[in-house]
Amino acid sequence: MVNTGMKDRKAPETASPLPEAAELEQRKTRAKDWFRSLRDQICAEFEAIETELDPTQPHADLEPGRFERKSWDRADHADADSANPDLGGGGEMSILREGRVFEKVGVNISGVHGHFSPQFAKEIPGADISKGQFWAAGISLVAHMRSPKVPAVHMNTRMIVTGRSWFGGGGDLNPMVEVPQDTADFHAAFKAACDAHDPAYHPIFKDWCDDYFFIKHRGQARGVGGIFYDYIDSGDWEDDFALTQDVGKAFLDIYPKLVRRHMQEGWSDAEREWQLVKRGLYAEFNLVYDRGTRFGLMTGGNPEAVLMSLPPECKWP
Amino acid sequence: MVNTGMKDRKAPETASPLPEAAELEQRKTRAKDWFRSLRDQICAEFEAIETELDPTQPHADLEPGRFERKSWDRADHADADSANPDLGGGGEMSILREGRVFEKVGVNISGVHGHFSPQFAKEIPGADISKGQFWAAGISLVAHMRSPKVPAVHMNTRMIVTGRSWFGGGGDLNPMVEVPQDTADFHAAFKAACDAHDPAYHPIFKDWCDDYFFIKHRGQARGVGGIFYDYIDSGDWEDDFALTQDVGKAFLDIYPKLVRRHMQEGWSDAEREWQLVKRGLYAEFNLVYDRGTRFGLMTGGNPEAVLMSLPPECKWP
Repeated sequence: MVNTGMKDRKAPETASPLPEAAELEQRKTRAKDWFRSLRDQICAEFEAIETELDPTQPHADLEPGRFERKSWDRADHADADSANPDLGGGGEMSILREGRVFEKVGVNISGVHGHFSPQFAKEIPGADISKGQFWAAGISLVAHMRSPKVPAVHMNTRMIVTGRSWFGGGGDLNPMVEVPQDTADFHAAFKAACDAHDPAYHPIFKDWCDDYFFIKHRGQARGVGGIFYDYIDSGDWEDDFALTQDVGKAFLDIYPKLVRRHMQEGWSDAEREWQLVKRGLYAEFNLVYDRGTRFGLMTGGNPEAVLMSLPPECKWP
Repeated sequence: MVNTGMKDRKAPETASPLPEAAELEQRKTRAKDWFRSLRDQICAEFEAIETELDPTQPHADLEPGRFERKSWDRADHADADSANPDLGGGGEMSILREGRVFEKVGVNISGVHGHFSPQFAKEIPGADISKGQFWAAGISLVAHMRSPKVPAVHMNTRMIVTGRSWFGGGGDLNPMVEVPQDTADFHAAFKAACDAHDPAYHPIFKDWCDDYFFIKHRGQARGVGGIFYDYIDSGDWEDDFALTQDVGKAFLDIYPKLVRRHMQEGWSDAEREWQLVKRGLYAEFNLVYDRGTRFGLMTGGNPEAVLMSLPPECKWP
């Protein structure tokens, strides 16, 4: 289970062989089922939080926010001009808008498949073996909060199959003003999830996160980090899948704790203004650098799902 | 003066020879002086508009907005890691914030020079001849308005020198809800400016604008267009420079007229909401597609100047 090869943040040169077709289908189904189950657990927890706001707090006069669910079909947005015209599958967006605690939170699960363009296939491990064919499923979440005291957050995990198979994912915390105990607890939760699988993982994933979520043109980090990883293929698929689940469970445990820790604190107009400015930086990162966002936009993905991460309101004063 | 070669939107295969050094320096100085003079005229006109708001209108209680000017030096932001570490020069940002009529308007003039990286040089006409050396000056303007009834606008013109020399630029109108007479008048102003130099120009520049300011992932135009052009090198530098001036003058004539036409109309909360959503699309375009913005960000430009175009407030609900 020692994966020292992650250090270079690249796919291992030698991939684990794919299992026989029936077993591979079973793995895909188990992964998709997990992403759906995690989505359901997260949505239920966030809806519970919506009912817990103290009546004296701002927005407590609103109805508790509830997720709206919307299916989307990849074929509806395929574009013959795009880099990847041949894509199938789809997903489900769950969005809670204008809640009491959550200003906008989107949880997207997706399962897509098809062929990459020959040019794009060159960048994807194993796509040479699969002749560009791929399958991908995952869960992706971004939460923008009413209160500037409650950090915004992102979490995503995914399973990819080309001529090889791997997991990727991560989560990062975006407080408006850093609270060191929150940062420490957020990192500790992901560290425990990673350490259960390979003690080498967490330091690598934490640095990867810091490097990835860096707004280069501003010379500043997007948030206080977390973990970011890709190309997990340790040779033990069960363990890799368990890591994926543990990362999801760690998120489900720690983030609601941080929300509940700060949601009853109230805030000033100046803190709200700062939150809107910080959100502008968040939008900059996602539109300029984020690989998932740019991949989605450039390949004719459903813009509503791809851009679900953008803040409900922000400022560039 | 017939420039049929613009049709393919590429630099002409055969460039006009550069003049001798003294003459080239004179041209650079004249262009820079014009950009500065245009900046001064535009700022004066916009400040005049700020004093004309009817006292019954929203925001009339504010002081008339005034431009703040700030110089920036390219060297302060050069980054050894960037694609273009060797850049000199700088510019002046003029920003009017939280005015009565203008919510945020930035007018930037710049004059930069240096060497492109070998890789980037390949994309720039004439950079092979100049061994990557370049000089560029220009004016760039984006106005975001208080009133959703007053269209937002962008205008930019520039002169570039590598182993050849050319002009580029354009302007486009971004109403929240289109007013056909405004659109017609905006197009007519630029058409007159172009027709004075080559009747072939306007239809080409108008289509180029429509194609350029298109938000592909949304399948919709950013605004109602205007003109967009590049690589103007007709063989008559004086005429090309006169075109650049005429485009600037056309903007200075028509845009203030459109502002005055609508600034006293008032608006509803729903219209303001729609304005904030449309501005989100504007930010998406600039951060995802705009060549100038991405060039500036990727080459370590001053982020404040490069991102001056972003809306003061926007929404992705």
